[in-house]
Amino acid sequence: MDNTDEKYMRMALAEAKVALAMDEIPIGCVVVCDDRVIGRGHNLTERLQDVTAHAEMQAITAAEETLGGKYLDRCTLYVTVEPCVMCAGAIAWSQMGRLVYGAADDKRGFRKYAPEALHPKTIVEQGVLADEAARLMKDFFKKKR
Amino acid sequence: MDNTDEKYMRMALAEAKVALAMDEIPIGCVVVCDDRVIGRGHNLTERLQDVTAHAEMQAITAAEETLGGKYLDRCTLYVTVEPCVMCAGAIAWSQMGRLVYGAADDKRGFRKYAPEALHPKTIVEQGVLADEAARLMKDFFKKKR
Repeated sequence: MDNTDEKYMRMALAEAKVALAMDEIPIGCVVVCDDRVIGRGHNLTERLQDVTAHAEMQAITAAEETLGGKYLDRCTLYVTVEPCVMCAGAIAWSQMGRLVYGAADDKRGFRKYAPEALHPKTIVEQGVLADEAARLMKDFFKKKR
Repeated sequence: MDNTDEKYMRMALAEAKVALAMDEIPIGCVVVCDDRVIGRGHNLTERLQDVTAHAEMQAITAAEETLGGKYLDRCTLYVTVEPCVMCAGAIAWSQMGRLVYGAADDKRGFRKYAPEALHPKTIVEQGVLADEAARLMKDFFKKKR
């Protein structure tokens, strides 16, 4: 973890807080290329009633739109919580250069169901501002009970 | 496999042929609920330059839009080729009632990377009109070489 990672993870956390304000599961994501944010997203599954509307999916679609290309091998994806199987699959198809996530998700995270799903060249880093990401999730689900 | 499965798989194959006509990898999908097609899609990853634009993802989004709800537990998804990890993850989130696919994909299919990714209640059937689906894929990649 360096300062740059923290800086972009704070942006992902800001996206998560937008989701929270909409009563969505608070997960946020940014995709960064050459020190520029080229895609961002937050969970919108309830608002859109669409299971594919995870933060990562939207950020990847946005980043590819910005670049005009399908491959994000020179980019880093920052997401506040470990990606699920679906999002790990999308990250793999994009050949993402680097994946940085905050809190682990031992229940729904890709490492449990598809530990080999990512592209072999994708560098993975976990635990960046994990406490803050986990706290957002915990508070959200506590209120729901 | 029954006649109904064949009927809907033919619609999925028609979608695949639309993709083929656009020079996309020829995979097609329909989602059926109460004997009605409520979502359809074909691969659009090249046209949109978006790795998330698989046939299944679009058909699921369309079906959920039609129903106005996130859960497709009373639906069947027909897809011409075995879903990838990303699409299997989306099928799982939707709690799809039944998944019927044609040709196996031993290289990129979900069974290799995430055999437990689907929802435990989803009934899976494979091999419906598999030869026709496989032939579309084979001819497409032969031309590309």
